[in-house]
Amino acid sequence: MRVLGIDCGTGRTGYGVIDSDGRTHRLISAGVIRTQPKSPFESRLQEISRELRSVIARDEPRAAAVEEVFYSTNVKTALKLAHVRGVALLLISEAGLEFGEYSPLEIKTCVVGYGRAEKHRVQMRITSLLRLDEPIASEDACDGLASALCHATRRAMQLRLEEARA
Amino acid sequence: MRVLGIDCGTGRTGYGVIDSDGRTHRLISAGVIRTQPKSPFESRLQEISRELRSVIARDEPRAAAVEEVFYSTNVKTALKLAHVRGVALLLISEAGLEFGEYSPLEIKTCVVGYGRAEKHRVQMRITSLLRLDEPIASEDACDGLASALCHATRRAMQLRLEEARA
Repeated sequence: MRVLGIDCGTGRTGYGVIDSDGRTHRLISAGVIRTQPKSPFESRLQEISRELRSVIARDEPRAAAVEEVFYSTNVKTALKLAHVRGVALLLISEAGLEFGEYSPLEIKTCVVGYGRAEKHRVQMRITSLLRLDEPIASEDACDGLASALCHATRRAMQLRLEEARA
Repeated sequence: MRVLGIDCGTGRTGYGVIDSDGRTHRLISAGVIRTQPKSPFESRLQEISRELRSVIARDEPRAAAVEEVFYSTNVKTALKLAHVRGVALLLISEAGLEFGEYSPLEIKTCVVGYGRAEKHRVQMRITSLLRLDEPIASEDACDGLASALCHATRRAMQLRLEEARA
């Protein structure tokens, strides 16, 4: 199953695409969409949308995973992020992709086995899961990949359970 | 100037389109986009997007106004609303419309002359400003129209000031 993971952000939106059967995983692409800080907010949303659309068209994922939005201390930042997430969800729905959303805790538990893992441990684990020679440098791209890996693993487990029941 | 005003909401998104020179205003269209409460959230965003796109294509506004997102007590509701607002801003940017955003206080002050006006006073004032025989029944459509009227009035004032300076 080909899965796209998106890590939404106004300034930097990370993404990663993998092929996975839930056990072995292969990197298809990963990157970061950077927007102009001085551009009007609505233009930045359009930039993100344009880039994400072209990733979907190029890599043809069947599913997409996005981290749940949560707010810790800064509600203003969370509200901005929710705008970007709205755009991402729209594109996912328009492309007819299967959609999954997970909390940061679920994603880290699934990928690293420990919900409060530090960024660099997530990065190391992704490097090993995807059998890469070098780690993915961008934290945002790593977060996108982590969401994709979480969805692929969960979905495969679900399918195996359904098969076992049938 | 033809202005579209959007009142974002997950369940009901109100909109109104007016022609205005900042002093006299004419109703072009007004309505409410209702989404299925049982549909997945991403499908509801797609429904809203599809309807808003067709309003923009049909009525060809030159500008669009959207209320600022604010949170009072319920952050969860504000975060949901911000997703819808992100979708609206994307469409506005894609259509190349001039964009304005105003606080509820600014909109009410502009339309009614009093920032804390009740919903029915806004409704009555819109009926009179647009010289309608009957009030617009939907509060959401009224809120959309109020944003459009606020933008048209502000923009016209700005243009007159610029002309006076030149």
